[in-house]
Amino acid sequence: MIYDIAIVGSGPAGLSAAINAKIRNKKIVLFGTENLSNKLTVAPSIDNYLGFFDISGEELKDKFQKHIESLDIEINTNKITNVYAMGDYFALMSGENMFEAKTVIIATGIQYGKPIKGEEEFLGKGVGYCATCDAPLYKGKRVAIIGYNKESEEEANFLNEIASKTYFIPMYKNEGLYRSVNIDEGIEIIKEKPLEIKGSKLVDKVSFKHKNIDVDGVFVIKDSSSPKTLVPGLESHGAHVKVDINMNTNIPGCFACGDCAGKPYSYIKSAGQGQIAALNAVAYLEKLKKNNTKTE
Amino acid sequence: MIYDIAIVGSGPAGLSAAINAKIRNKKIVLFGTENLSNKLTVAPSIDNYLGFFDISGEELKDKFQKHIESLDIEINTNKITNVYAMGDYFALMSGENMFEAKTVIIATGIQYGKPIKGEEEFLGKGVGYCATCDAPLYKGKRVAIIGYNKESEEEANFLNEIASKTYFIPMYKNEGLYRSVNIDEGIEIIKEKPLEIKGSKLVDKVSFKHKNIDVDGVFVIKDSSSPKTLVPGLESHGAHVKVDINMNTNIPGCFACGDCAGKPYSYIKSAGQGQIAALNAVAYLEKLKKNNTKTE
Repeated sequence: MIYDIAIVGSGPAGLSAAINAKIRNKKIVLFGTENLSNKLTVAPSIDNYLGFFDISGEELKDKFQKHIESLDIEINTNKITNVYAMGDYFALMSGENMFEAKTVIIATGIQYGKPIKGEEEFLGKGVGYCATCDAPLYKGKRVAIIGYNKESEEEANFLNEIASKTYFIPMYKNEGLYRSVNIDEGIEIIKEKPLEIKGSKLVDKVSFKHKNIDVDGVFVIKDSSSPKTLVPGLESHGAHVKVDINMNTNIPGCFACGDCAGKPYSYIKSAGQGQIAALNAVAYLEKLKKNNTKTE
Repeated sequence: MIYDIAIVGSGPAGLSAAINAKIRNKKIVLFGTENLSNKLTVAPSIDNYLGFFDISGEELKDKFQKHIESLDIEINTNKITNVYAMGDYFALMSGENMFEAKTVIIATGIQYGKPIKGEEEFLGKGVGYCATCDAPLYKGKRVAIIGYNKESEEEANFLNEIASKTYFIPMYKNEGLYRSVNIDEGIEIIKEKPLEIKGSKLVDKVSFKHKNIDVDGVFVIKDSSSPKTLVPGLESHGAHVKVDINMNTNIPGCFACGDCAGKPYSYIKSAGQGQIAALNAVAYLEKLKKNNTKTE
């Protein structure tokens, strides 16, 4: 099955894109988390989303949840690690799984903070962003999980069942996050900031101020990964995907919206852009259809 | 008093701009109608504004109303007919009244339908968009009101107190609009489509299929007027104000958002752009402040 529109990200931009595409009767798939958006969920009070005031992030998230449910939109929790433009369609990879779609909307948000030294250099050479996808590669090996959110704790436990040695390096504070699981015994927790991911051809070390640990793989678990890494060939502008006012990227059929498409980082701006992206994706599909009819 | 930000238009774009600017502690003035937005009010059901579904336009308008009230934002019902860029500030004209602001956000929406032949040619030469503003010019004279909304009925009654002869030409159906007043006796109602506004140097006629009427002035009462007419020097792109992704127009300090800034014509897109415009206006004000400190 080829979807009309694949949406990557379940924050306000992705959700708004999804409802608008669904209302236009498109076959959509929405990749995200059950929690929809960590950033939204932890917001104490939101006043600048026209129509809602003095509402908590959790409450607004519930409104969004009900809205997508009213349209029978489900969240697909497969974590998309790569999106490849194949000419007339896109292939979205999630470990062993592949999804196909005629258009793609990137709404992955933005990860605050810079990548760790070596993180981008060794991506695919021992550094990965999805433990569940790449775990089989590390059977009986030593891995480190650098976790930016609570979900990374689950990934650490999962990897620990497979790996010979698991290090867990939390990059967040415990407070204010939405759920907590227990780190399994046997996992070594390092509450220190990693300085560099090192190696020669492949990763072999994570360095800290006073020590190194020897590893075969490093998983960096963030709410979102860099769009450049996600979609090879995507043009960017600093940390943001380069888009025009219709949310077109440089790749035909690939749109971007929300935080990943630029500032301000704000909910209704993201929801507005999600709508623009979806309606332009619908227009793009119409054009595809016409062109196909002509050449047949 | 010079406002920090003047917002022209009280639809979703203008309202979203207003709440975002107010939250940032700016001195704002919001020009619009008590009804906020005719277009919104008459919408039977809205499903594509993330967070609300199966809500009527009237209900959504009430939510917006409560939101601006929660922030003590009032609607200034002076109709702005011209905005002049004066270098380091803007002058907003409403008949005899003038308002001054450091930045302006244009959120005037879009008027469906083309202008009548002669309308743009004779603008300011007998054609006007605001009866209350220009009425004194037509004391004892003959005027026609071409009305696209119910509010135009009030303007007709008002003009009839001053003019020697008043024609009222309704361009709308009676159904579905939010309020109705009675047209005063003595006003001649012409239920026919005007073909052309004619004259030599000044307006002297409105022509219909089978007749002409002699007039000294014509008022075209629409929900919104063309931004080009509103702000001399504003660059446009077809019917839309030319904006970049930050809602900047070609005039520094002047922003545009919502329907007047392009398609899709849709509420949450407009609200999102209103936020972007407001936050960029705030950033522009910061820059102004820094420059002024430097030169002092």
